[in-house]
Amino acid sequence: MSSPVSASLLSDLVEMAHGAGGRATGRLVEAIFFRHFDNEWLRAGNDGAVLPGLLPDERLVMTTDSHVVSPLFFPGGDIGCLAVHGTVNDISVMGARPLWLAAAFILEEGLPLTVLDRLVASMAAVARRANVPIVTGDTKVVERGKGDGVFIATTGVGALAAGVNLGGQRARVGDAILLSGTLGDHGMAILHARENLSGIDSAFSGDAIISDTAALHGLIAAVLASGAGVHVLRDPTRGGLAATLNEIAHQSGVGIQIEEAQIPVQPAVAAACEFLGFDPLHLANEGKLVVLCAPADAERVLATLTAHPLGGKAARIGIVTEDSRHFVRMTTRMGGQRMVDWRADDQLPRIC
Amino acid sequence: MSSPVSASLLSDLVEMAHGAGGRATGRLVEAIFFRHFDNEWLRAGNDGAVLPGLLPDERLVMTTDSHVVSPLFFPGGDIGCLAVHGTVNDISVMGARPLWLAAAFILEEGLPLTVLDRLVASMAAVARRANVPIVTGDTKVVERGKGDGVFIATTGVGALAAGVNLGGQRARVGDAILLSGTLGDHGMAILHARENLSGIDSAFSGDAIISDTAALHGLIAAVLASGAGVHVLRDPTRGGLAATLNEIAHQSGVGIQIEEAQIPVQPAVAAACEFLGFDPLHLANEGKLVVLCAPADAERVLATLTAHPLGGKAARIGIVTEDSRHFVRMTTRMGGQRMVDWRADDQLPRIC
Repeated sequence: MSSPVSASLLSDLVEMAHGAGGRATGRLVEAIFFRHFDNEWLRAGNDGAVLPGLLPDERLVMTTDSHVVSPLFFPGGDIGCLAVHGTVNDISVMGARPLWLAAAFILEEGLPLTVLDRLVASMAAVARRANVPIVTGDTKVVERGKGDGVFIATTGVGALAAGVNLGGQRARVGDAILLSGTLGDHGMAILHARENLSGIDSAFSGDAIISDTAALHGLIAAVLASGAGVHVLRDPTRGGLAATLNEIAHQSGVGIQIEEAQIPVQPAVAAACEFLGFDPLHLANEGKLVVLCAPADAERVLATLTAHPLGGKAARIGIVTEDSRHFVRMTTRMGGQRMVDWRADDQLPRIC
Repeated sequence: MSSPVSASLLSDLVEMAHGAGGRATGRLVEAIFFRHFDNEWLRAGNDGAVLPGLLPDERLVMTTDSHVVSPLFFPGGDIGCLAVHGTVNDISVMGARPLWLAAAFILEEGLPLTVLDRLVASMAAVARRANVPIVTGDTKVVERGKGDGVFIATTGVGALAAGVNLGGQRARVGDAILLSGTLGDHGMAILHARENLSGIDSAFSGDAIISDTAALHGLIAAVLASGAGVHVLRDPTRGGLAATLNEIAHQSGVGIQIEEAQIPVQPAVAAACEFLGFDPLHLANEGKLVVLCAPADAERVLATLTAHPLGGKAARIGIVTEDSRHFVRMTTRMGGQRMVDWRADDQLPRIC
């Protein structure tokens, strides 16, 4: 990993000079960012990228996210692929085609350049796979102890076709709620990478828990192409399914009823949650999709989800109800009812 | 400043829960970001903003920058207005109309919310003045000692009209080089805010040195509307005029010759540079414009610059030369020649 980078840079660690906008910045950008992200827009070397326009009827969609996940590498991914996937997904859940990404890096002085190189290579690989080039970027460096290795802010632009209108405010009473797969894999993978869980390895297999980080644009395109009456798409990331459903309930002025028995959770994640006192409804996911659609189309959407590699464990998990208090409730496996509230505190910080 | 914010939030300091994506995040976003940035796209509350398309012949321009300036407040501005101005300027120097901004915040646990509120108010004010709404955003929180108050990554999208083609690679031998005003004001204002310079106050008036942070889109629109044959526009920020001219020389494969006697520098900045051993050519500017244009149009561009409130001290400072080594040279006030190189080290870190 190290030789091509080390040979062309003055040092093996990020220095303040790498953020100064002079010769060292130029070398860093060429040796790492241009090498991995290689495309015509970056090579132009200007303050921004000049991109084609949209098709006549298309609208623009724009989204941004800063990524501060700790640790930088975790089972199933790293901050680099997470940053690309997260932004591709935020564009895609609006129903738009993701087109271009921008990436702004905040590096901590002392970061090994080989670490940065691996992260940028990871970003480049998943961006290429998603066919969404990183067309412009920026690098800043902060002193040791003023950052935490690498933070990455990614911004995406996409094109929204005429007639596609999705959004958290479009849920209707009676809508079916579907989930594309198991809950909590990402959050539990981060926890596993961060904490020393060896003492409780007998309770669950750590190896089985890997992040679900993935780009959802293909899965979403399939759902939209099915012709189903889709009203809301969301990826239940930070705050988990609980936060996502509460947001939708508030935006649309409805209630939501879900069934615990229908919600897929991997056995290892369920066991870890039970052991550690976490709730899979609040754990972050980075490659799952929530779909709200007309009830008559629910089976069609479910079939589309399960036919896709990222939706094999999809399930119909609930229904939109009339509720002036906008409550999210869950029928438990025991047959009782519980409220699914937003958490006031932070169950697991810095998971994305 | 504090009452409306404090009253609606649980605490006066940023907590980890403010970054968790749950109830506390929602309150923070409403009490500070929505209140100041108030617009239809943010109020929609989705993962991204749905925006109109472009005009048929327009191309899209996209740019991103992370801002880590220290301290957060400095004479003439703060990290908030700097972030908006910087991104508006990066879009504008491509010759594009800035349209929309995204803002991603990384907050350090323990930051007073009144500080965040002031910074966001500052962003909102200058974004409104520039008529470029902040349409989408994100907030993350990192633990005390893993950040430094506030980092802001801003990304801008603009529309580039047909026929406008500017870029660092378009300089031609013989082009005139113009500068819209005095060099080094921002860098020296940051230095003044950061270091204790009271001991040398007799050498220069600290009060006179304030950042030049400003949105250049109006000045640039005037230059383009003048009908002059403009080839390159740049804002000489990080790395200063020296880095900007070296970049252009490399991108275009030309040499550059400037005249020290023609380069405007405020007396207080010049005195401080001399006293402290800084070079105004390497100090950052945040509201200055470099124009390269056909020599026949130089006087017209100069007249346009000087007629604008942001260009009152504009000057013609040099010429593009033929030079296979792509050197930037300066005729000194003494009549000698010196090289104007990129700096290898960091004269003044974290100025933007």
